[in-house]
Amino acid sequence: MFLEMIENANDIKKINRSDYKVLAQEIRQFLIEKISVTGGHLGSNLGAVELTMALHLSLNLPEDKIIWDVGHQSYTHKLLSGRKDGFDGLRQFHGMSGFPKRRESDYDAFDTGHSSTSISAGLGLVKARDLKGESRTIVSVIGDGSLTGGMAYEALNNAAKLETNFIIILNDNNMSISENVGGVSKYLNNIRTATGYLDLKEGIYNALSGTKGGDNMVKKLRRAKSSFKQLVIPGMLFEDMGITYLGPVDGHDIEGMMKVIREAKRVKGAVMIHALTQKGRGYGPAERHPARFHGAEPFDIETGVPSHPRTTANYTDIFSTVMCKLGQRDERIVAITAAMPDGTGLKRFHNMYPDRFFDVGIAEEHAVTFAAGLAAGGLKPIVAVYSSFLQRAYDQILHDVCIQNLPVVFAIDRAGLVGSDGETHQGIFDLTYLSGIPNMSVMAPKNKWELSDMLKFAVGFDGPIALRYPRGTAYVGLKEFRAPIEYGRAEWIYRESEIALFAVGSMVKTAEAVRDSLKEMGHAVSLVNGRFVKPIDEEAVLEAAGSHRLIVTLEENVASGGYGEKVLRCLDEHQVRDCACMTVTLPDAYIEHGNVELLKKEIGVDAESIVKRITEAWV
Amino acid sequence: MFLEMIENANDIKKINRSDYKVLAQEIRQFLIEKISVTGGHLGSNLGAVELTMALHLSLNLPEDKIIWDVGHQSYTHKLLSGRKDGFDGLRQFHGMSGFPKRRESDYDAFDTGHSSTSISAGLGLVKARDLKGESRTIVSVIGDGSLTGGMAYEALNNAAKLETNFIIILNDNNMSISENVGGVSKYLNNIRTATGYLDLKEGIYNALSGTKGGDNMVKKLRRAKSSFKQLVIPGMLFEDMGITYLGPVDGHDIEGMMKVIREAKRVKGAVMIHALTQKGRGYGPAERHPARFHGAEPFDIETGVPSHPRTTANYTDIFSTVMCKLGQRDERIVAITAAMPDGTGLKRFHNMYPDRFFDVGIAEEHAVTFAAGLAAGGLKPIVAVYSSFLQRAYDQILHDVCIQNLPVVFAIDRAGLVGSDGETHQGIFDLTYLSGIPNMSVMAPKNKWELSDMLKFAVGFDGPIALRYPRGTAYVGLKEFRAPIEYGRAEWIYRESEIALFAVGSMVKTAEAVRDSLKEMGHAVSLVNGRFVKPIDEEAVLEAAGSHRLIVTLEENVASGGYGEKVLRCLDEHQVRDCACMTVTLPDAYIEHGNVELLKKEIGVDAESIVKRITEAWV
Repeated sequence: MFLEMIENANDIKKINRSDYKVLAQEIRQFLIEKISVTGGHLGSNLGAVELTMALHLSLNLPEDKIIWDVGHQSYTHKLLSGRKDGFDGLRQFHGMSGFPKRRESDYDAFDTGHSSTSISAGLGLVKARDLKGESRTIVSVIGDGSLTGGMAYEALNNAAKLETNFIIILNDNNMSISENVGGVSKYLNNIRTATGYLDLKEGIYNALSGTKGGDNMVKKLRRAKSSFKQLVIPGMLFEDMGITYLGPVDGHDIEGMMKVIREAKRVKGAVMIHALTQKGRGYGPAERHPARFHGAEPFDIETGVPSHPRTTANYTDIFSTVMCKLGQRDERIVAITAAMPDGTGLKRFHNMYPDRFFDVGIAEEHAVTFAAGLAAGGLKPIVAVYSSFLQRAYDQILHDVCIQNLPVVFAIDRAGLVGSDGETHQGIFDLTYLSGIPNMSVMAPKNKWELSDMLKFAVGFDGPIALRYPRGTAYVGLKEFRAPIEYGRAEWIYRESEIALFAVGSMVKTAEAVRDSLKEMGHAVSLVNGRFVKPIDEEAVLEAAGSHRLIVTLEENVASGGYGEKVLRCLDEHQVRDCACMTVTLPDAYIEHGNVELLKKEIGVDAESIVKRITEAWV
Repeated sequence: MFLEMIENANDIKKINRSDYKVLAQEIRQFLIEKISVTGGHLGSNLGAVELTMALHLSLNLPEDKIIWDVGHQSYTHKLLSGRKDGFDGLRQFHGMSGFPKRRESDYDAFDTGHSSTSISAGLGLVKARDLKGESRTIVSVIGDGSLTGGMAYEALNNAAKLETNFIIILNDNNMSISENVGGVSKYLNNIRTATGYLDLKEGIYNALSGTKGGDNMVKKLRRAKSSFKQLVIPGMLFEDMGITYLGPVDGHDIEGMMKVIREAKRVKGAVMIHALTQKGRGYGPAERHPARFHGAEPFDIETGVPSHPRTTANYTDIFSTVMCKLGQRDERIVAITAAMPDGTGLKRFHNMYPDRFFDVGIAEEHAVTFAAGLAAGGLKPIVAVYSSFLQRAYDQILHDVCIQNLPVVFAIDRAGLVGSDGETHQGIFDLTYLSGIPNMSVMAPKNKWELSDMLKFAVGFDGPIALRYPRGTAYVGLKEFRAPIEYGRAEWIYRESEIALFAVGSMVKTAEAVRDSLKEMGHAVSLVNGRFVKPIDEEAVLEAAGSHRLIVTLEENVASGGYGEKVLRCLDEHQVRDCACMTVTLPDAYIEHGNVELLKKEIGVDAESIVKRITEAWV
């Protein structure tokens, strides 16, 4: 077991060259075993084993810096930098994060989570290095998917001006670069890496102008036709921008990778190493089902089947089903996703209405303005997106959709606490950033039926409107409360006196439990399902204020700009003096990874904590 | 006067071909005369006269659609679509907007203002057209500057898949493509447009593989060396992505443009016309000083000198001066701008410390994450940016700067109402979107000295911190109040009783006037300069609540998530019952263009309106 020799960073350098392959195997085995128990990102990590080993062998860590784009492929890096023991608590409350975290380790150079940030961050570290006269090597590792995000292009555009070293590794697991065009691929690889740093322009011109078999290559290229772009283009595109291109190289060939990293270090400028890798490499089920093993729940290693198969529908499933129905009723309905057809539940819509489905890649900004264009053209676009990723399109919502009051529906999944992905993925800001935007309306459903009703309402609404719903199992309580959705109106579920709970979305369920406890204590408690966060139902709030002595608002969002503040403002504007208001919100803090129920207890937004707060301070 | 014949859209089609040049001259004269009086974007409009004429001559408007990226170059379009009379009230209150507005005219297909949105929006209109079985032509016009914005790349990446027509005009006023390499340029132009739609790949391969003088071209290209990229690359880059490239063409040659538009219409796919234009064309001062005439104040036509030269310093000037001083004291200080070295006042810093200044182009997302990288590398980055443009980097602030609590300073200019640019440029959301972000601190100075003090404070602060200040003349009142900046502490300016005004930034000046009026009426009025919007000074608020019967908050920001709501929450959490609170904020609406003082009156945030509200409803 060579893996036993890896206790700390740089221990890998003690391993003999001839044993690299065995170590890679052991790492794969380790990752599969651990992730099968904890769950986690499997496919991308299995694809990056050798690439990471080559980096750890070639670099002087932590002096040198690696920035992992998106970051969920950094497991081997964590393993090789002294965090082997962390894998038993991976992505669990108070356990090791599934993403790079500077506060977790000196070997994590920059926190990541969202896509396409690594080149910008890397360039910042490069400029800091140069200004401070340091000499460390900076490497950004970015996947081909992340490269569709516009800010990666903005960064490349800037990196092109560099006159000092900056290594970008393109971890490309696109299967379309395969054996059938391998000849040309190898040729290109040869001319580019053969004699150290070789000016690609020279190489290409030489090749194309008839010397050194160039005519032959042109013929080959012309024969290849459709494959041409996928092959030559990555290099050409980057060289066009002024980035030196090395590759493509086999990302599973450790010594080959080490060689090209050595070459890359000698380039005085930005250099891109194009490494070809295979997602899920070395584990059959993950190789065959890359999407399923992207972010995996615990699974049986033998079969690849989830250990705890899901038996209940989650909100994504409901959204998926209703979208298909709505699509049938109204052919103006079109759906947009930014690289998340599975995650958002749009895959079935895609299958049924392929022409009306648009996957724009990891490109949230474009997704939203594209939707604005579709709406301006007379269609009914639904943008399905995770709450934390929609942050990236804030300006597009504000500037391209809402100024023109265009009827774009935002179906915001993973709103509220998301659990094991942690800080970067918590969807706890959307009520804030959306509510501040004029012309925007915002809803949140209490249960699965209301998600359906709200989606139908949204599609019929003539203006920008968002509905946000959480990750995980759809709530099936309160089935009997299904009053029609009316614009800006809340739903009275229980109408009593003394204390009125105004809850939003997922917190309606919590509010039920709070109410039960308070009633047991002898209080009379009303329950209102807020439904609309913008505009809030002022009439309901004022009615409650007139007949209760305390209003409690409950939401799964930070306080600033959230539902509670809107209720406070309403009470203030109407100069309500004889009804108090207590706001339950998430704290003004990033919330770590872990089981959502545990997190809620920790931050005091579980029913028990809320009851305690109410009874101790407010009644 | 051919211009007199242009009363409505499509009137230009009545003009004889031989008179186009004279008409272009008349349009230029008209624009110069009008803008010299009203102010406005001159240079970009003078550069787009012929290009716009060619579009109006080639298209069937309003059936066909033009999307103007950024939009400030649409004056000729407005002129040719029946809005000649609007120019007397250009960018003035209730007058014609300086940007395309769908509600202003059917000929404006999509509202723009921020950069790099036109290809996304155009692609949306294209897909809507195709799904609805329509046959209109869609044209997006984008400048070379806007093309550095990442979302333009995201959109191009998507447009590449198109199998129906979509025309993108690259309005390129980059001077680096000039006569000295005109031979090759012309050659490329010929092979690409000669026989209708010509597959570039075929053309290039033929050329390069030795047939039809290709070897000769390769030789030329190799000789051109450094010019090569600027020349061939635009085309190659887009073709690499799958976009048909036509050009470069002379954007001032109306008939040439019409010819290439005809060619472009026949392409079944996305096609880019690369038009070379000259900013400020036809007006000497604008040709010589493109930056000064980008967005011009009223000027003397003869000399180009501003009619009302500025005699007072604005906040940008103060920022500029202090940055230079700070740069001298601490060499870790670096400055970042996204294509706004003049507008943000960083030009002098650039001159003094060229190595520590970074203009990343129109690329706000990259700018912020790049700054995060610089901070992680041990430097002290200051990102100078307009409030409305920083919206585009919301996710980067939240995800790349604040999670890691990195010491990045955001110097936010044009915060609050900006005046004549209107809806798209009002900086009235920053307090909302920044306050919701954990670890972020937000300040606003009351006058010019406080801007200086706050900038110094920010640079010494160990975490993300923003200071926001308005467009225009820096306030020089309250000079004697200059207590040191303390984290999270407000500044008591006048300490009386009854009514306490808590004002933020620009509203401190307004609050002074409010106070004067209230005192004349016999009220005792305290004035507190809030200084920190996040965190607010709870102690000051509670102290005021204990000794006043009304607190009035004043801010130039929308209500949701703003300063007023924070004060309300503070009062609520401390269960304050005997002090009321009135919040003065901007309305939940987009605010049109016009003189800022007029706008403030209109929306009721001028001193007089505020006094009226206070006295009528609250005291």
